[in-house]
Amino acid sequence: MQGFQHPSFYEPQRRNVQRVDHSKGRETVKMIALNIGILKQKKWLAASAAGLFLFFLLLTFPSAPSSYTSGTSTSTSGSSRADNAVEISTKKISYDKTTPPTVGCESIVIAQQQLLISEYTKILKDIRYVNIWGYLETENKGDAAIWVAQQILLNMLGITTMEVCRYVDRDCDIEKFAGALKEHEHSAIVIAGGGNTNDFYWDDVPSRFKMMAKFPDVPVRSFPQSIYFTKPDKLNQTLTNYGAHPDLQLCARDRPSFDFLEEHFKPQGIDTRLTPDIAFMFGDRHDIRLNTPKKWDILILARDDWEVTKGAESELKEGEGTLTLPTGRTVTYKKIDWKKIPTGGINDEGHKELGKNQRAYAKAMDGFALLASSRFVITDRLHGHIMTTVLGVPHVLLDSKLKKNLNYHGTWTEECGCVRVVDDMGEAMGMAGMFFEVAENRA
Amino acid sequence: MQGFQHPSFYEPQRRNVQRVDHSKGRETVKMIALNIGILKQKKWLAASAAGLFLFFLLLTFPSAPSSYTSGTSTSTSGSSRADNAVEISTKKISYDKTTPPTVGCESIVIAQQQLLISEYTKILKDIRYVNIWGYLETENKGDAAIWVAQQILLNMLGITTMEVCRYVDRDCDIEKFAGALKEHEHSAIVIAGGGNTNDFYWDDVPSRFKMMAKFPDVPVRSFPQSIYFTKPDKLNQTLTNYGAHPDLQLCARDRPSFDFLEEHFKPQGIDTRLTPDIAFMFGDRHDIRLNTPKKWDILILARDDWEVTKGAESELKEGEGTLTLPTGRTVTYKKIDWKKIPTGGINDEGHKELGKNQRAYAKAMDGFALLASSRFVITDRLHGHIMTTVLGVPHVLLDSKLKKNLNYHGTWTEECGCVRVVDDMGEAMGMAGMFFEVAENRA
Repeated sequence: MQGFQHPSFYEPQRRNVQRVDHSKGRETVKMIALNIGILKQKKWLAASAAGLFLFFLLLTFPSAPSSYTSGTSTSTSGSSRADNAVEISTKKISYDKTTPPTVGCESIVIAQQQLLISEYTKILKDIRYVNIWGYLETENKGDAAIWVAQQILLNMLGITTMEVCRYVDRDCDIEKFAGALKEHEHSAIVIAGGGNTNDFYWDDVPSRFKMMAKFPDVPVRSFPQSIYFTKPDKLNQTLTNYGAHPDLQLCARDRPSFDFLEEHFKPQGIDTRLTPDIAFMFGDRHDIRLNTPKKWDILILARDDWEVTKGAESELKEGEGTLTLPTGRTVTYKKIDWKKIPTGGINDEGHKELGKNQRAYAKAMDGFALLASSRFVITDRLHGHIMTTVLGVPHVLLDSKLKKNLNYHGTWTEECGCVRVVDDMGEAMGMAGMFFEVAENRA
Repeated sequence: MQGFQHPSFYEPQRRNVQRVDHSKGRETVKMIALNIGILKQKKWLAASAAGLFLFFLLLTFPSAPSSYTSGTSTSTSGSSRADNAVEISTKKISYDKTTPPTVGCESIVIAQQQLLISEYTKILKDIRYVNIWGYLETENKGDAAIWVAQQILLNMLGITTMEVCRYVDRDCDIEKFAGALKEHEHSAIVIAGGGNTNDFYWDDVPSRFKMMAKFPDVPVRSFPQSIYFTKPDKLNQTLTNYGAHPDLQLCARDRPSFDFLEEHFKPQGIDTRLTPDIAFMFGDRHDIRLNTPKKWDILILARDDWEVTKGAESELKEGEGTLTLPTGRTVTYKKIDWKKIPTGGINDEGHKELGKNQRAYAKAMDGFALLASSRFVITDRLHGHIMTTVLGVPHVLLDSKLKKNLNYHGTWTEECGCVRVVDDMGEAMGMAGMFFEVAENRA
């Protein structure tokens, strides 16, 4: 195999700033306020529509607040500056370390959901029944959200899930699995989405080799995945086995993963796609944020495994308490890794919930509830970031060792005002400090 | 029973116009153009986000185009008009007969979908399994869309559908139906949504009496419905039977229906809600509009039953052909009632599709395809209006005899730029004429 290279990763990009007339800018804000007034006359839609509209304001004037208040933007154009002009920077708001994150990112959430629907309408065209490959139940609320979101998308496309397995030879009635596919025309196997297509966790990838060898006549599709290989022999083995299936389509959830698929998998005759993470099928759930009472100021949702980066490490023990921010303000916090938090209501003696979808839904909702109970979230989990964005809760994001967090963020969510990227826990606490200095965030 | 009254209906409301400074208005448009430019730098989200943003422009400046081009707006304020001022009317764009409908209504579609999700999160709290009451399969593409949309919402909430029936004593294994409810804690019966809660079609309502009498211990919920009673004895009978169930919740899909529930059903101890029509669970599907080749200029989707109003009647026979608009332009058209159009691919000999969800999905998608194949739609079907709005196809809406179309439109969609309300087929053709005079709509 030739031409093997490590995948390349995104670097934050700073864009040139552009100048607009200050007085006209103020007029614009005034007119937008007028328009929100008009919207509010539509009593039943006012809350949602005005919320969306306000978000557009944030989206389309990404750094206006910092330009007005901190004066840190600098002009890179050579032209002279008019007396009444301010500068509106077009750099991505989530890299701005001079302002704290704000509430909501509805339009980018909705755009990702729509893209998932429109892309999978094509990917799963004429498919009416599927078996899913890669089912697993853990306490990880992100895994649960992925499972539920897969079901939401399939149902959106009128598709019924029949059988689910993870291994050909373990915890799986493979004959029943095969029988369901045979019984239904218009059926396919869909590989679960997530972060397991890599050569570190060498478990799900080889299990797919066996599945594909066993079902050469069944179309195999995939939900969006991160792709990460560093070992040429394992990549080679994967390309050989995947390439042997005559009707395989793979879907990446971030640009570096997609580029890697294009470079290595596409030449094997494999159809490759790029879509957002499946969890965006939850769509805009600002209602959960609004309907959940706040229990603590800061939630620290932190990996506790080998994927933790140096920067994300912290002396803070898991649990609840108070901490003092760099500004001197004392806040309440809770620190967890949500894969260790048992989900209530589904394991009670004599009342154990048996439904796979029901169990996953309860866990995903527990995850959303944890995030929505917080005024501010610090996380190095990708689905901490994604689910917090679905809710619109202000948060900061640290990368993980496989770089999947910033690869995702750099592809899809870097224009979200509700997130800031930080390099380490010190910066995270600094950002939290700034956040709680804004009066409305303290209550 | 006292205080019985016919429900009241919405009348189009004309609002006062407000004045803004012309020069500032232009500056706003310029800035918005700049911002769209910024959005487009985000390659992967640009199409969706810019589309949404453009829609906001339409939404928040509802009659700006007519003010600029036709000069028909008049000021009702007593103040003098500045030289550089234009008037921006805040009347609802869809009643404006001086301008044709435009493409798209994404933000109102999305806001309705979000409201359905947030309301049913509360209505179906702690419910994990449901039986549905009121299943029927017809060729009506609107009924099929309702069925699919119900499944989308239930799956969004992690809920599995077990059994479905319409009558206790016909086409229903009522013991199996009862057994499924008994087998699962956290279960409920949900009555299907739609337009059948009235005393004209006296079929589904009395069938619910029997169901509720048989399951007094099971929570009964409903998907959104139109409510329309004119016969005091039948209303009385309904109130008595519905009121006898100890845990019933009803949901109206338009304001007059909700007001009627509040007045008559709520005093019986029945919980009452107002939400948009369930079909908005499809969300924004502008992708279907964009991906469907256009086959004719005008689709006339017309009821062919007793619900047709005088104004919606027409000499035009069902079928395809050409017609000449009042402007003299000749266009191609197709006229149908989609409950008579057989859906392809699900009834082929030896390959009949048996899945309820699959059959409904195929029919709903056939409905969307009919609408999306058209440059302009004329309809007096409520789900003609709703599904065309989901796609964002420009259209005109006529009322139906039970007034459910304009009741719905007046509650939720009157600010959609993609629809105009007309009184009869003559006005519909006039609106089509105006539409095809806009150069970009002819191709």
